[in-house]
Amino acid sequence: MFEAAELGHKLSKAAYHKIEPALRADLLDAQFDLSKNGTFPVLVLISGVRGAGKGETVNLLNEWMDPRHIHTYAFDKPTDEERERPPMWRYWRAFPPKGRIGILFGSWYTSPITDLVFKRIKQRDLAQAEDEILRMEKMLADEGVLILKFWFHLSKRAQRKRLKALEADPETRWRVTRRDWTFFAKYDRFYRISEEVVRATSTAHAPWIVVEGEDPEYRSVTVGKTLLEAMRKRLDQKPERRARRSTAPPIVEPVDHVHLLDRLDLTLSLSKARYENELETLQRKLALLTRHKRFARHSVVCVFEGMDAAGKGGAIRRVTAALDARLYHTVPVAAPTDEERAQPYLWRFWRQLPRLGRFGIFDRSWYGRLLVERIEGFCSVADWMRAYGEINDFEEQLARHGVIVAKFWLQITAAEQLKRFKARERTRFKRFKITPEDWRNRKRWDAYQVAAADMIERTSTAHAPWTLIEANDKYYARAKVLRSLVEGIESIL
Amino acid sequence: MFEAAELGHKLSKAAYHKIEPALRADLLDAQFDLSKNGTFPVLVLISGVRGAGKGETVNLLNEWMDPRHIHTYAFDKPTDEERERPPMWRYWRAFPPKGRIGILFGSWYTSPITDLVFKRIKQRDLAQAEDEILRMEKMLADEGVLILKFWFHLSKRAQRKRLKALEADPETRWRVTRRDWTFFAKYDRFYRISEEVVRATSTAHAPWIVVEGEDPEYRSVTVGKTLLEAMRKRLDQKPERRARRSTAPPIVEPVDHVHLLDRLDLTLSLSKARYENELETLQRKLALLTRHKRFARHSVVCVFEGMDAAGKGGAIRRVTAALDARLYHTVPVAAPTDEERAQPYLWRFWRQLPRLGRFGIFDRSWYGRLLVERIEGFCSVADWMRAYGEINDFEEQLARHGVIVAKFWLQITAAEQLKRFKARERTRFKRFKITPEDWRNRKRWDAYQVAAADMIERTSTAHAPWTLIEANDKYYARAKVLRSLVEGIESIL
Repeated sequence: MFEAAELGHKLSKAAYHKIEPALRADLLDAQFDLSKNGTFPVLVLISGVRGAGKGETVNLLNEWMDPRHIHTYAFDKPTDEERERPPMWRYWRAFPPKGRIGILFGSWYTSPITDLVFKRIKQRDLAQAEDEILRMEKMLADEGVLILKFWFHLSKRAQRKRLKALEADPETRWRVTRRDWTFFAKYDRFYRISEEVVRATSTAHAPWIVVEGEDPEYRSVTVGKTLLEAMRKRLDQKPERRARRSTAPPIVEPVDHVHLLDRLDLTLSLSKARYENELETLQRKLALLTRHKRFARHSVVCVFEGMDAAGKGGAIRRVTAALDARLYHTVPVAAPTDEERAQPYLWRFWRQLPRLGRFGIFDRSWYGRLLVERIEGFCSVADWMRAYGEINDFEEQLARHGVIVAKFWLQITAAEQLKRFKARERTRFKRFKITPEDWRNRKRWDAYQVAAADMIERTSTAHAPWTLIEANDKYYARAKVLRSLVEGIESIL
Repeated sequence: MFEAAELGHKLSKAAYHKIEPALRADLLDAQFDLSKNGTFPVLVLISGVRGAGKGETVNLLNEWMDPRHIHTYAFDKPTDEERERPPMWRYWRAFPPKGRIGILFGSWYTSPITDLVFKRIKQRDLAQAEDEILRMEKMLADEGVLILKFWFHLSKRAQRKRLKALEADPETRWRVTRRDWTFFAKYDRFYRISEEVVRATSTAHAPWIVVEGEDPEYRSVTVGKTLLEAMRKRLDQKPERRARRSTAPPIVEPVDHVHLLDRLDLTLSLSKARYENELETLQRKLALLTRHKRFARHSVVCVFEGMDAAGKGGAIRRVTAALDARLYHTVPVAAPTDEERAQPYLWRFWRQLPRLGRFGIFDRSWYGRLLVERIEGFCSVADWMRAYGEINDFEEQLARHGVIVAKFWLQITAAEQLKRFKARERTRFKRFKITPEDWRNRKRWDAYQVAAADMIERTSTAHAPWTLIEANDKYYARAKVLRSLVEGIESIL
């Protein structure tokens, strides 16, 4: 993989000066078209060895193009806000919106590689990291992100020469740190490991471009041309092309039409007296758990899904009533804002992840993709088909970071929904007024039931199981939600 | 001020249970109307002494209303991301959008009061803090934010009793910390200082409501009713009412029509050779300054303003070319996103403030309010009239935190603009294609000149001066921008 980047590639200054003006103009034009087009972002990852011209190249890209539309992020030590979320959170924060170029200096590759070089992790951890990265980049690509990954390489001899040269010049001496030499001492190990990673994670939708870093003219033109061609190719693509990629087979309905949800006993109920008793006990338990000293090392993400009027709001209020208002935030999921629409669909949920010791309570969630978006055709079949795996990956990242993921599906019968709709029409509470949309959704009851059953089956995992809530009786439902949440937290602390 | 909150106010449980259901229903309705109305946010500040039921009341508000539309924030120790910005940054992050209720637990009052109680600041520092707070709250109120500030009070006797009671109960013992008793030891001083602050900062648009905290029923109903009445009153206001408040006198034009900008010598120029020489020297100086060890304690905010085609983009590129791409981000200011429109106009700029050691470069800025918004009538006369002071306050906060604020007005003649427009029409660079809007703005040249002269006069301050750039000659302009920036940074380090 890296041999071709030790051939001593060169471009003469004369050739460079001939190529540069047109390349620059073309890049600017492509950047302008990207912005006008506004349907996809460009994500450029910059990795490789020290002294191979990474910084210089990024600066040059900012010089060649309009720096006002390039977002460059360098990832140094994570801030404390970043440390309190899963490791990928800091990268999600930095993703460019559609129409923009984002350059990430350092990325999700940095830790796995250096951790293995310095033996902080094992080979099998690296394999797992690669696997996760592959899935995440696939998701980003499927979301329309144009991904380019540049690996800047130097031969051992060239790197030593470069570091020595930087040290010799009083102007650049500051750039070489002890850390650079520590890395250099591990050159061979670093070479072997990073080559393996680059090989394992180079895909059609997120290719690595290995660039020989010794000659500034060569590396600059290589990066510039690669970026230009990739942008141009995507810009020239007809929009239909992408839609037609949706070739995943649709899910087959069980031929006997029996779903998971049909098996629930919706007659389960609780007397008012028993409910009040249980509610008090459970809320008290929950409140105590949040003050447990180990709780400060975790956070809780609650997801509430269910048909309209299934009692999500009521259940959420019974949970929050047990919590100090300073410890939770609730996220009512409605139409995305325009900033959210300019990002992959999971972005709006990543941004709402709670800090350690806190609750993030989602009233509807990322599962919208598998429910309303699927049913209403807001996304293609391929889009929601891939969402099962993407969501499992997302929740696994949460769980691995110590986030307790508690997901509740509140199930009611169609008859019970009708009863509640009618009751709402009579209520004095404006917030309960039902809308034409509620009636419209009700007509699609069966389709939603099929989609929900699919969703629950495919996304109930060991690290983030669904809890099905028999919700025809509100007392029973609320008590079960609380009990399940309490048990979920207890099992982790 | 606090005497009335030591009268032993009480509400019987019976009276409470009679009032509560209707109050609750009315609050829910008001919250629903607020959300539908969507034209203003409600900001509730919760302050006062420990043990006076602040937490309980906030939890109750979240129980009474729909917690999904309330944002509750508690301000504990600032995170490192917060410490790297001016102190108000963390509150700006927490402001609720229009249509929502935001509850801030702890606020901009916390530090000034406790700092003076424990003698970390002087009396005159408190006076200054009060002054700044008054101006900021006025700005928020003018931006339409409904502000309610609750002060929870307990007499000395009642506070001691309450802390003892909490300590005696094994269930609540954890809530009383040594810090609480440290505070209690300073009760009298705390009383005197906070009473003074409450008196000095209670205004018609942001009143303090002092609540006696001893009786839970009394304090809950007091807060609930106050919040309800304030929301209801604002909701029932006709929108015209607010617009009619705009009674500030318009600015009078100088009768001889001579402006600041007319005095600039726009024939100033630089030969290409001298320019290239200067550019190299200045860019090198700038690059070195960013590596100065004291620079890590500062950040730089650059503002570029000027008529279309004045050369803002070109000047910005000469600055960024000297910087490592990891150290700056540029913010091209265009139409606000919907998340930004739901906030006070300065919010979108606060969120872009750079961390320490970094540059934030604004291509157009908050000065839009005094230029395009004034000229095009996007805001009322009163709105842009108050912006002079608001912007000065904002920049003073930046400067006080060690931010170097460098503001450039690039001045060209109308004839030069025409020449550049025509040249742009012939260029092959798409990004330079001029739009009908550019021609439209050009027709308003004189109005923009008057507005710009006003703006520069009124917002050129010791902590954030404007630098006027004679920009008919691009070489001269770029060199002057760089020189001024270098000198500005040198003067602070």
